[in-house]
Amino acid sequence: MIKRLSHPSFRSVLAENPLVRVAGAHDALGAKLAEEAGFQAVWSSSLEVSAARCLPDASLLSMTEYLQAAAHMQSAIGIPVVADCDTGYGNTLNVVHMVHEYEAAGITAVCMEDKLYPKMNSFAEVSQDLLSIPDFVRKLEAAKGAQSTEEFFVIARTEALISGLGVDEAVTRCTAYAEAGADAVLVHSKQPTNWQVLEFLDRWDGRVPVVIVPTTYPDWTATDAAAAGVSVVIYANQGMRATVTALRDTFNAIQRSDSSRPIEDDVVSVKEIFALQRLDEWTAIEA
Amino acid sequence: MIKRLSHPSFRSVLAENPLVRVAGAHDALGAKLAEEAGFQAVWSSSLEVSAARCLPDASLLSMTEYLQAAAHMQSAIGIPVVADCDTGYGNTLNVVHMVHEYEAAGITAVCMEDKLYPKMNSFAEVSQDLLSIPDFVRKLEAAKGAQSTEEFFVIARTEALISGLGVDEAVTRCTAYAEAGADAVLVHSKQPTNWQVLEFLDRWDGRVPVVIVPTTYPDWTATDAAAAGVSVVIYANQGMRATVTALRDTFNAIQRSDSSRPIEDDVVSVKEIFALQRLDEWTAIEA
Amino acid sequence: MIKRLSHPSFRSVLAENPLVRVAGAHDALGAKLAEEAGFQAVWSSSLEVSAARCLPDASLLSMTEYLQAAAHMQSAIGIPVVADCDTGYGNTLNVVHMVHEYEAAGITAVCMEDKLYPKMNSFAEVSQDLLSIPDFVRKLEAAKGAQSTEEFFVIARTEALISGLGVDEAVTRCTAYAEAGADAVLVHSKQPTNWQVLEFLDRWDGRVPVVIVPTTYPDWTATDAAAAGVSVVIYANQGMRATVTALRDTFNAIQRSDSSRPIEDDVVSVKEIFALQRLDEWTAIEA
Amino acid sequence: MIKRLSHPSFRSVLAENPLVRVAGAHDALGAKLAEEAGFQAVWSSSLEVSAARCLPDASLLSMTEYLQAAAHMQSAIGIPVVADCDTGYGNTLNVVHMVHEYEAAGITAVCMEDKLYPKMNSFAEVSQDLLSIPDFVRKLEAAKGAQSTEEFFVIARTEALISGLGVDEAVTRCTAYAEAGADAVLVHSKQPTNWQVLEFLDRWDGRVPVVIVPTTYPDWTATDAAAAGVSVVIYANQGMRATVTALRDTFNAIQRSDSSRPIEDDVVSVKEIFALQRLDEWTAIEA
Repeated sequence: MIKRLSHPSFRSVLAENPLVRVAGAHDALGAKLAEEAGFQAVWSSSLEVSAARCLPDASLLSMTEYLQAAAHMQSAIGIPVVADCDTGYGNTLNVVHMVHEYEAAGITAVCMEDKLYPKMNSFAEVSQDLLSIPDFVRKLEAAKGAQSTEEFFVIARTEALISGLGVDEAVTRCTAYAEAGADAVLVHSKQPTNWQVLEFLDRWDGRVPVVIVPTTYPDWTATDAAAAGVSVVIYANQGMRATVTALRDTFNAIQRSDSSRPIEDDVVSVKEIFALQRLDEWTAIEA
Repeated sequence: MIKRLSHPSFRSVLAENPLVRVAGAHDALGAKLAEEAGFQAVWSSSLEVSAARCLPDASLLSMTEYLQAAAHMQSAIGIPVVADCDTGYGNTLNVVHMVHEYEAAGITAVCMEDKLYPKMNSFAEVSQDLLSIPDFVRKLEAAKGAQSTEEFFVIARTEALISGLGVDEAVTRCTAYAEAGADAVLVHSKQPTNWQVLEFLDRWDGRVPVVIVPTTYPDWTATDAAAAGVSVVIYANQGMRATVTALRDTFNAIQRSDSSRPIEDDVVSVKEIFALQRLDEWTAIEA
Repeated sequence: MIKRLSHPSFRSVLAENPLVRVAGAHDALGAKLAEEAGFQAVWSSSLEVSAARCLPDASLLSMTEYLQAAAHMQSAIGIPVVADCDTGYGNTLNVVHMVHEYEAAGITAVCMEDKLYPKMNSFAEVSQDLLSIPDFVRKLEAAKGAQSTEEFFVIARTEALISGLGVDEAVTRCTAYAEAGADAVLVHSKQPTNWQVLEFLDRWDGRVPVVIVPTTYPDWTATDAAAAGVSVVIYANQGMRATVTALRDTFNAIQRSDSSRPIEDDVVSVKEIFALQRLDEWTAIEA
Repeated sequence: MIKRLSHPSFRSVLAENPLVRVAGAHDALGAKLAEEAGFQAVWSSSLEVSAARCLPDASLLSMTEYLQAAAHMQSAIGIPVVADCDTGYGNTLNVVHMVHEYEAAGITAVCMEDKLYPKMNSFAEVSQDLLSIPDFVRKLEAAKGAQSTEEFFVIARTEALISGLGVDEAVTRCTAYAEAGADAVLVHSKQPTNWQVLEFLDRWDGRVPVVIVPTTYPDWTATDAAAAGVSVVIYANQGMRATVTALRDTFNAIQRSDSSRPIEDDVVSVKEIFALQRLDEWTAIEA
């Protein structure tokens, strides 16, 4: 009989692995393919989830919608989802409600960033204002105070480098966030190399693990990042970017050739889709 | 100011084009890329929507979930969505409720098939039982009687060929369906060539347009199909199949090289994702 | 800090109480007031949930919608929800999916009935067709095989008496259902007295507990029912029926007197609404 | 054949009636009973919708959830819903998205207030901070710029009196809001009499209609309010407050008497519930 999938907590995955590789996704299918490829967790990416709706990553979709996406992903895989929860969707009350709802949905890790609500995507060319340290600390304390299980894991993400405030500010903030109870810190940088992150790691005392998202500095291998002190590497949006390329190529090829003939050998068969749907296991129920 | 997109009805698109090419999708992003490639409508595919959840295409997801997917697609594009509504989700009462709900969501065309609820995907290797002609006719009459606008368009899909009942049965059924008010008929075949469809077209009197889904006979160009009497060609699942290939390749490449470096030139940039999100138009609101 | 509410399983409540009284509800507020009044569980009633949408109790709303209602109720109370799951929403595959989804949402008990999908409410004056015993047994086996926790509890409801098939058939069916793994049986009757249920209890060997819904025979006290062998009494819809009366009276009184003055003393204050929302606990977060 | 209900726009109802009486609701059933009692529109109340979830009216529920409630109400009635949209759920981008979504759902009127996001209910004993006039004006301009139909109606609600800023500030704000394109202004007061509203009306030049919510000053009849210059009176939460009383009384009576006997004559019959579900019209489909 086909059973509901279970999954370890992100905390336990991190405890057992010196380096955790995470892939971004926006639906259950992408999450499953990330698991299949050997990633140890899935990043429920706000950029991807909003892009799947053709809406900007700017707090336009609601927590309900982001949570639904994360929950659908989690239900399809045996590895943990790390939910990108933006700013926590408002003030400390919203953060408490968020923790209640994500935990109820079986999500074991969330990430919350120190920008103002409503947020704008970190790579957008707009100025990014940060919450004060005390205000974000209160959100973190609220999140940690609201969780029901010891397993629940809260990543504090600083946008200090994105906002141009420099590495000192990033270190100061991450230290305060760890003091407030954050289980890990995510240092986000949009520099074309890893220099900012290296500088950060150099000054970081290691009190909690460090998470990075090397979207703009893809030359740094995860292994090298781990050697420098990183514990978690998130490949946040490459899957969606590949999807856009694939859909464009496929749809254009069909139009050009007036049939799907030319692309048939480049794409998986319908049987492969059935396998991802676990069709055999489901039809076995009726047999 | 960025406005909610409007779209023509599927009926009007069909009236203005002797041949309508339709691409399958399961989310707004796929729908938008289909529009971008020049397709004239989007097929909100049950196979794709259920596969995006890693669940079989077997009436497991509910009308609520299929409708949400279709509505999200429709809201992001300026071409009509044709909603794959399986069996109509139950009996005639369910069909009436379905028409109310899809019409309220701005969907202008639905497709309903003559299988029993709960259905199983047509390509699955299981036997497929059909509803009797009078029972499906009552569903079609219910659908047509329930619509509020003249624009609303109901496609009657017969699974006679899928069920092995032959072309005669398909013609008999489609004739009855057209008599009952169906605005078009979809003749589904899983033969490796177009022979069944050609035989059907040979006997079809053309009282309503014919729709095909050439998944298993991709050698037939849309132009040739149109010459043989087809009005609508649906490329129902190639986009998703390409997506799976792309995600597999991308995720595996990242794992192999321990970085996203090797795939960076093969995938669109984050800026391209922003463009699909219409980020500039949205940020202009605040400026 | 305000925490997510936890709740015992229905199985454990039943183990600790020779008689369990259950009240019907359709939203979290009703569920909370049932708990406040001392009921030990809440019946997430399909009749109520569909009536709250002004739609008939005829499988028009989807599992998604019924599950959302049940989950919202469960999240607001410290007693278990027993989810009215109608026919299980289709065939055995749908039942398996249903169990996965309800269990994931924290629901510890579901009830499934032996009518055909789509169902019609038991009190509607239409004929009611039943599934064959082997077919419903397969659904029950599927449900029990699909559950992940030992706590999960499946109530098999027979509509034999509703369908006019008599007490013998009800006993035969319930015996088969208990054999198939049902954790309890619900014997539904729409007679104006308890005679049918008494006859059933007289012949029932007690292998699993008996649940009743005394909508049409309200003279029978729960204590007397327990003495006759009943373990669970569900007051399935009285709350909604009282709500309709209250809303009618209140809205009409406002219209008649052109102000809300006359009803102000008959309704709770806004402060009472705040208390039900636990406003003080929530605002304490920011303090 | 049962059809999807249509409804006039709130704008047209207001054009045809010197005084519009509106009742608050949180689900389709309440909305239908308001219509039945002769109200001309329904207020989709954030207080009620959040209370139905046992959560505070503090921007905890998301726009998705409030919109779903409003859309469910609108689908069940032939009078317009006026949607309580709190602060517009964020900044001007959120407001634009909100207008797109509510208009797509068939809602013809929304109300937006000049508090900060996340808001707290106006009757809660906390300090209430307001947005600056220019900032709220930009939200109103965004809302009006985003609408697709001329019918769409935006009510600007000032919380100046709730915040203790006085009538002058309320007049200044409402004037600016009307200049920015608001179709009406809502002046909210929590004084135990109508004195503040009277003072406001005395200074108001009438450039757009005035809406009131006489929760704390129920002695003032709608007719008297209209004579003083009010165009719309919203009885925002009396229905829910009556519901709580009714549920408490009913559940307690059942517990006390160990049966539902004593309340049976005080509540509507199941047949009345069927009538509200329009069961006869639905079953006629199959006949």
